Amino acid sequence: MPGPAQPAAATDARVVRTRNDVLRVAIGLLLDEGWDALTHARVAREAGYAKATLYAHWPTRRDLVLDAFSRFAETPHHAPTGDLRHDLVEELVSFRTAMLEHRLDRVLAVLVDLTHAMPELVAVRDQLVTDGEAVVRDLLAPVATGPELEAATLMLCGAVLHAALLHGAPPDEAGIAAGVDLVLAGIGVRPPPGGDGGPSMS
Amino acid sequence: MPGPAQPAAATDARVVRTRNDVLRVAIGLLLDEGWDALTHARVAREAGYAKATLYAHWPTRRDLVLDAFSRFAETPHHAPTGDLRHDLVEELVSFRTAMLEHRLDRVLAVLVDLTHAMPELVAVRDQLVTDGEAVVRDLLAPVATGPELEAATLMLCGAVLHAALLHGAPPDEAGIAAGVDLVLAGIGVRPPPGGDGGPSMS
Repeated sequence: MPGPAQPAAATDARVVRTRNDVLRVAIGLLLDEGWDALTHARVAREAGYAKATLYAHWPTRRDLVLDAFSRFAETPHHAPTGDLRHDLVEELVSFRTAMLEHRLDRVLAVLVDLTHAMPELVAVRDQLVTDGEAVVRDLLAPVATGPELEAATLMLCGAVLHAALLHGAPPDEAGIAAGVDLVLAGIGVRPPPGGDGGPSMS
Repeated sequence: MPGPAQPAAATDARVVRTRNDVLRVAIGLLLDEGWDALTHARVAREAGYAKATLYAHWPTRRDLVLDAFSRFAETPHHAPTGDLRHDLVEELVSFRTAMLEHRLDRVLAVLVDLTHAMPELVAVRDQLVTDGEAVVRDLLAPVATGPELEAATLMLCGAVLHAALLHGAPPDEAGIAAGVDLVLAGIGVRPPPGGDGGPSMS
């Protein structure tokens, strides 16, 4: 029953909802209209909250930006199944899907551009990139090390980013699979017969 | 001797100089201060020309932007020697050098961002990217075709772009070479004994 003293859970849920509403509006303004559009007044109006609420949570516009980008660290990844080729393709397809469905390519482009003007975003960018590459790097770590592991990770993630930003669209699943096959052949990993993901007995 | 009727060659040289001066200032403003800074008045003042001269050559700000980016199609490339591994590494190192010395990474980031707002830049971006990738694609064409050629080109160029934009710096020469070795091994190309670029007789 609602009363003047709300239970902690309800307060938490309300805070989470406010945060989600505000940051969703903030990132939308950044992606569509750029830094100049990102004012407390505009975000408050479009998100439907009082300006005072925004100032209480995010005293400056930079606080808003930092938090808005941090949310993208929660982008879902593929859960590995043990079939290396399949897992790499699916993880890169999930990178592609985040671009197509959640505008991750645009988020990254705007983040790169803003980081140029706001060096305090470097830490946010680095965290986002480290998290973003982690599944690919961890999948490859048992079969590659050192510069080869780094090059393989950079090339697989880079092919998706490069096509999305400079060709106008990320590669399709067949294009992603061609890259994965090239990298695995280069490392010297052969897919097991039948492609069931189990170790080859031959 | 200067006279009222200048020889055509002198006129051409002057036009080229004006064009270079103006576009260099225009791209600098775009990279450092963004689209809002790119006005005829500001560019004319900083380049040392009359505003009327600018309007005569570039009637709109968009004309200025289109021309300013087109200049980067003239970025120098590595001239192939016939040694595939060496030529790929050197071409990607020249991509890296253009980033470090001519801010090509920033040019591409700003171009991506502006293309979002100005779809007429798509043709400029596509031309720049096609020219930029041409040497790598042509070097690989004798040893790879179809999706493999496309994936190899995307991965090699993408690794340099991804590191420059999202890690804050392009890969060093050793990192580039690790990627080239991985791709060539994946394609099944072995470096000739002695690395002289000639066909292996073994």
